[in-house]
This record gives sequence, C-alpha cells and structure tokens, in this order.
Amino acid sequence: MKVTLLGTGAAGGVPVFGCQCHICLSAKITPSLRRNPACALIELDGAAYLIDAGIMDIGERFESSFLNAIFLTHFHPDHVQGLFHIRWGSGFRIPIFCPPDKEGCADLYKNPGILDFRQLKKFEPLDIDELRVTPLPLIHSKLTYGYLFTNAGTSMAYLTDTKGLPPAVTDYLNAIVLDCLIIDTTSPPTVENRNHNNYNDTLAIHESIRPKKTVLTHISHDLDNWLNENNTSLPENMLIGRDNMMIKI
Amino acid sequence: MKVTLLGTGAAGGVPVFGCQCHICLSAKITPSLRRNPACALIELDGAAYLIDAGIMDIGERFESSFLNAIFLTHFHPDHVQGLFHIRWGSGFRIPIFCPPDKEGCADLYKNPGILDFRQLKKFEPLDIDELRVTPLPLIHSKLTYGYLFTNAGTSMAYLTDTKGLPPAVTDYLNAIVLDCLIIDTTSPPTVENRNHNNYNDTLAIHESIRPKKTVLTHISHDLDNWLNENNTSLPENMLIGRDNMMIKI
Repeated sequence: MKVTLLGTGAAGGVPVFGCQCHICLSAKITPSLRRNPACALIELDGAAYLIDAGIMDIGERFESSFLNAIFLTHFHPDHVQGLFHIRWGSGFRIPIFCPPDKEGCADLYKNPGILDFRQLKKFEPLDIDELRVTPLPLIHSKLTYGYLFTNAGTSMAYLTDTKGLPPAVTDYLNAIVLDCLIIDTTSPPTVENRNHNNYNDTLAIHESIRPKKTVLTHISHDLDNWLNENNTSLPENMLIGRDNMMIKI
Repeated sequence: MKVTLLGTGAAGGVPVFGCQCHICLSAKITPSLRRNPACALIELDGAAYLIDAGIMDIGERFESSFLNAIFLTHFHPDHVQGLFHIRWGSGFRIPIFCPPDKEGCADLYKNPGILDFRQLKKFEPLDIDELRVTPLPLIHSKLTYGYLFTNAGTSMAYLTDTKGLPPAVTDYLNAIVLDCLIIDTTSPPTVENRNHNNYNDTLAIHESIRPKKTVLTHISHDLDNWLNENNTSLPENMLIGRDNMMIKI
C-alpha cells in the first residue's frame, strides 16, 4: 500500500490568505512549505483511492478513470470542495463512500452528477478486492469518520478531523498492530479547540495506540510556527506530514 | 473601466472532467480553450472588484489588500467556491455584496471568517466612490442578481446566471445607453434549459437591449462545439468571451 499526502493543511491552508507570519511569508516563496486541504491518495495493486476531496485540481491531477473510489471523512467544504466541479463530468460514475450525513454540503446530494454517494456504517468493514476499509467514528462538529485500511497484514488509519478519539475507537485500534497512523494535529499545545487535536492530543493518542509510525496532518500555520520556533523534537517514529510526501506501508 | 474575464465557463467548465468531445480534448492541450467558472474583475481608478468567486486561486492571484469588494450574483457553488478557502484569512475583512439569499452556500454564513456579507436590494443602487452598482433580478433556480456598473457616463451590465430577463430589467436597460453587456450563454440553440440562456435567448436579449457590445460568458462545451461545428457568424458587435479576455469600457 502506498499513501501520498496530497494535502496536509488545516482549513485555511498554508499560506493563510493575507497572513504575515513567518511560515506564511516563507510558504509564499517556498512551495514545499505550502499545505493544501488535507487529502491523501492510496494506491494498491493498480487501484487508486482518494481520502477526502478538498483539493481543487482533481480534474487536472487524475485522468477520469484513475480513481476507483473516494472516501470522505465528512462534509465540511475543505474536505469536499473539489467535488463541486468534477461532479459535472461525463461518461462514468465515481463511488463516494461517506458517513451517513443527512445534509451533505451545499447542493452535492441534490445535484450529484457523476458522484455515487454510498453511506457507510461505523465499524462495519467494506471490502474492495483485497482492501478492507473500516469506518471509525471521530469527534468533530460534523458527523465524521476516520478510516482503517488493511491489506495483506498491513494497516493504516487515517483519522481527521477529530478532537481526541472515542474510547471504542481507541479499543479497536489497540486490538490490532497498526503500521501507520495519519492524524489530525491542527494546533500547537497552547491552543485548545473542541474540534481538532493539538500537538499534545496527538502525542497522547500516539502513546495510547502505539502505531509503528505516526504522521501529522491537517496542520495549521500556528502549529508550523510553533514547531519552528521551539525546534521541537518529535518522537523518533513520528513525522510531520508534508504535501506530496509518499509513505510506503 | 477595465473588465477582465477571469472565467467564462458553465458549471462543469471546459474541459469537462472525463469528456471526450472535440472541444474538451482540445482544451486539455490548449490552455486558451479552457474555461474557468464564470468570474470577472473590474478595475477602476486604482480599485478592484470581483464579480463572483468560483475561481479557486483567489488567494494566489490577488494580494490580500488588492480586492476592494466582491459582488456575488448568487450562491451556487461554481460562483462562490473560491470563498471557502480565503475566508480563513487574517488581518482585514472583504465586503461581499450579494442578493438576500437566506441560505447562502454550505457554512459560509455560519463561518464567514473575513467575509463581510452585505445583502443588496434589487434596483437600489450602491455607490462606491465614483462607481454606481445596481442589482438587477435575474431568472434562475436560486435568488440571483445581475449587476449594472456605471461610471462617468460608461456602463456595463453583467447578467449571469439567467434564462431570459424579467420585463422590468429589460425596461431598465432599455432606458439607458449600455456600452457592454456580458451575459449567460450556456447552451447552443438546440438546448432548452429553464435556468440558463441558450444562444438564441442571448440573440433575442441582444436585439432587445441593443448594447454597443455583447460578450458571451458562462459557456458550456456544448456551445463551444456547436459554434465550432457550425462555423457560426455572430453579429459584428457580439464576442465570444474567453478566459483572461480584457475589455475596455
């Protein structure tokens, strides 16, 4: 299983529009510091799956038959806005697996176009060929799923957006050997947000679940500045996610 | 008054995702054939105003203090989706003039960030320095305004999305000398759509209002193909809009 982080940013991305902070000014002239909306591509046995669709160049990035399915964590705009455009495509339908959110976002349900929304039930695995996908409920201001992807004895959990984890999810992940955890880490430890992890929340989850590797995503400019200013040492099996980072699992 | 068409496409844009038609295949390799979501920039006396915000690179295209205001025709995603991202900007607020739509789009009203929504009343002009802006009600599936911009004896009407015009708007525009009409022309004459003009609708409006110049916008690949296949001759004071076209008024 190969995972490519197409975006690792919080809702405002990096650089934040109009922001004069050190990181945002640097990101304007250093593309590697930019952060698109959090989004990841999974490739396995010639198939490709997108997790979230907040990036706005899906139509340019992928040939129309490239994506086998899209998994949505939730229906906030920064996780679905790339669908507004491609839904008007032609010639095929894309399965969009998602939580059973009644509203969706804007008029996506009303005018789905080529999008084939399929709501999943929490903890009920979906098998697509050799890939097993298990929706894990998260703690956020909108109905949100993380997803556990398992294949041939390897496993990756993608958990964003969330503030902490429900005990049932912690128990579920503690019962398996987790190769990689990719997790919402929006803010520095100095910021408390009831919808997103800060750095200390992620450290606690990392220590509780003990994955072989943890990758931070959904990162704000505030966290980037804090990491930079404090010259923070992460645990050796923890990585700061970057746009276009490829992870082999 | 200078107007730049930043986007001239219908909701699906050109190329349409996955489409194999002549125009879409050509647009993939010929950037000048591409059509972004319909959107225009007005520049006047050092000030800049955006009409609609469906383009997704507002944050990259404009320095944060560049835009004096944004005028929204309506709250369909292809006309507002560029706001989802920049609303999380910092340090200033952008006036967003719009129709009195109760819903808006997704959570834009709930989480406006730096966006300062100001609802306008139809036919009641707004004066910003030397620019007068008059909202004109249109005929669409969501509450929609066109806008008449006048300055120092020159005038431009931007009317999209619409199917035909309400008689009161036709009368209003007939009572003035209109230098330029930029108008929704989504489809070829063979297609009837209750929410958008086809080419014949636009011809009828052009002949009724008699502007000095008419520019087609909100163009679908269907219209592009039809114009191409029929080698259509437009009236001499009618232009097919193109992305990045600049118009002096």
